[in-house]
Amino acid sequence: MANLNAGSAHPIDLGFHALADATRRAVIQKLHHGEAAATELAEPFDMALPTFLKHLKVLEAGGLITTRKEGRRRICRLEREQLARLSGWINAYEADWRGRLDRMDAMFEEGE
Amino acid sequence: MANLNAGSAHPIDLGFHALADATRRAVIQKLHHGEAAATELAEPFDMALPTFLKHLKVLEAGGLITTRKEGRRRICRLEREQLARLSGWINAYEADWRGRLDRMDAMFEEGE
Repeated sequence: MANLNAGSAHPIDLGFHALADATRRAVIQKLHHGEAAATELAEPFDMALPTFLKHLKVLEAGGLITTRKEGRRRICRLEREQLARLSGWINAYEADWRGRLDRMDAMFEEGE
Repeated sequence: MANLNAGSAHPIDLGFHALADATRRAVIQKLHHGEAAATELAEPFDMALPTFLKHLKVLEAGGLITTRKEGRRRICRLEREQLARLSGWINAYEADWRGRLDRMDAMFEEGE
């Protein structure tokens, strides 16, 4: 995959970048059901803990999760506002509004 | 930005990766208004044409655009279905359904 993102740090860039990986999306799916400790989140994945923690850092940099320490545990929490911001960006372009407006125009003309 | 995506090629990975860059998002915004030639799309950007064409390739790999040759021009077209797929993925986790259900439960209990 070509890396043309080097050096960019826009919150929207970092958010979409964080979503571009199956492990990170699985973490989001899990956190949808509630907060969880980093070690607990890591369990289902067949990877070294430091590698998994890097994924959490990418999610944090992307604004998709926040973390806090509780004793020796690092608790992760889903940040739905950033998800809403990212889907909001996509939603503006997903629908063919021009096509819809053309069809509405045609309907009005037929009705005249 | 940590590159933990090396080697992955899931269509959803490639789609979100394509969205993680301001140039590529600007191309999507432009194509929202209709098809356009690659050279025409490149004009507003202060970058070498080969660099810009790499961005188009990332968009194409991500399923967000398709391109076709018309004489010497390469025409680009927005693929809204992939945008819908990506926002669909996000939308499933964006809302706090558990919180909403808890609040609904509380409302019913108050009404009893």
